[in-house]
Amino acid sequence: MERELAQNVYDTPEFFERYSRLNRSVHGLDAAPEWPAIRVLLPDLGGRRIVDLGCGFGWFARWAATQGAAHVLGIDLSEKMLSRARAETADPAVQYVKADLESLELPEGAFDLAYSSLAFHYIEDFGRLVRTVFRALVPGANLVFTIEHPIYTAPTAPGWLVREDGRKTWPIDRYAVEGARITDWLAKGVVKQHRTLGTTLNTLIGAGFAIRHVQEWHPTPEQVAAQPALAEELERPMMLLVAAQR
Amino acid sequence: MERELAQNVYDTPEFFERYSRLNRSVHGLDAAPEWPAIRVLLPDLGGRRIVDLGCGFGWFARWAATQGAAHVLGIDLSEKMLSRARAETADPAVQYVKADLESLELPEGAFDLAYSSLAFHYIEDFGRLVRTVFRALVPGANLVFTIEHPIYTAPTAPGWLVREDGRKTWPIDRYAVEGARITDWLAKGVVKQHRTLGTTLNTLIGAGFAIRHVQEWHPTPEQVAAQPALAEELERPMMLLVAAQR
Repeated sequence: MERELAQNVYDTPEFFERYSRLNRSVHGLDAAPEWPAIRVLLPDLGGRRIVDLGCGFGWFARWAATQGAAHVLGIDLSEKMLSRARAETADPAVQYVKADLESLELPEGAFDLAYSSLAFHYIEDFGRLVRTVFRALVPGANLVFTIEHPIYTAPTAPGWLVREDGRKTWPIDRYAVEGARITDWLAKGVVKQHRTLGTTLNTLIGAGFAIRHVQEWHPTPEQVAAQPALAEELERPMMLLVAAQR
Repeated sequence: MERELAQNVYDTPEFFERYSRLNRSVHGLDAAPEWPAIRVLLPDLGGRRIVDLGCGFGWFARWAATQGAAHVLGIDLSEKMLSRARAETADPAVQYVKADLESLELPEGAFDLAYSSLAFHYIEDFGRLVRTVFRALVPGANLVFTIEHPIYTAPTAPGWLVREDGRKTWPIDRYAVEGARITDWLAKGVVKQHRTLGTTLNTLIGAGFAIRHVQEWHPTPEQVAAQPALAEELERPMMLLVAAQR
């Protein structure tokens, strides 16, 4: 039941309509403040075969094609997102496939890069997915992904508290208690899977990946100057960026 | 000034006296709840040359000698701790040296294991220390260490908050703002160095280490049953355990 909800929330009318209005849904990669930090983790894409796990509206897939990628396979569970992605994509190097990341199967050694943005925190069986991705990559290939940071997903009641001295703090609890977290984000009852940062990294290492970079994303001073609301990301990380190599 | 304080706090009478009364100071490794989790990260110690960075009273050094270590070099800055360590150590395989981890020099390729318990979060120049340790290890050798977890060191006001519903939470702020944190732990004005988990791992990777295991320590159900006060460690991690390999 919970899993059904998590999987299909993007196709519920209320969620989809609100998600479609997010800055990053309207304006793409450059509207995501973490994008510059992701981009420096990516290899040169020229001639690469890329799989995008949770491709959404296809912003990354289309951008990768403009960078000379030989082939980009975008995978998502949401019919509505894939429908818009297909409508907005003309490049024949980009293809979209509907699939559930929980039961995904991929050809072995078929990709030079696996990419995923803010999708893996919906996945219950992260170990299965990581092993599948490892096998689908050629030796030396990278997996670059972002998830919601476990500091962000852990709390029973995620939200800022204002202390007596006026400082905003982010109240952590249940950090070591992994599993489902039900939150109200764009719609009521969205289910995310909380895993500690250690579990995420150890799962990658256990599958054979070498950890290349771990970034608990925060804005640069220039980003804060241009968009002051981002300053709260200095107080607690909302996003985790990981680069790993087969 | 701050650095002097951080370095020498263990030798101030008030701090040393209180530190000496901690369970782990009186009863050694088995009184540290994280010890079973550390132990599984250690290789077989038989015949190994080991350096213990921040050896304190020498509990680990003496234990390593009982496990057949060929040589254990315990390093600490505190005269008082080294004095007690020497007094309690009879094994000729164990030696103690006074040195500052900030400016430590070690012979190259001289050790098969580097170990450190709850010392690195006092170090300002972690990068220099990690590069020194890397060079001091033989290829394939492990670095196993614990530090205070950045969730624990980050806050301006570290301490539990009780929410209206009675739940205890740990208020995070300034997570991305690295640098000194002045806290009252056993004595007033103890200076620790806050670094994000990402920075700690990326520093190791940058020096050439492969990350083998990352554990945000929490107690087992058996430990909580035996010592109910440990349950709060499920809410937010206090300690980080890392195993890396040259």
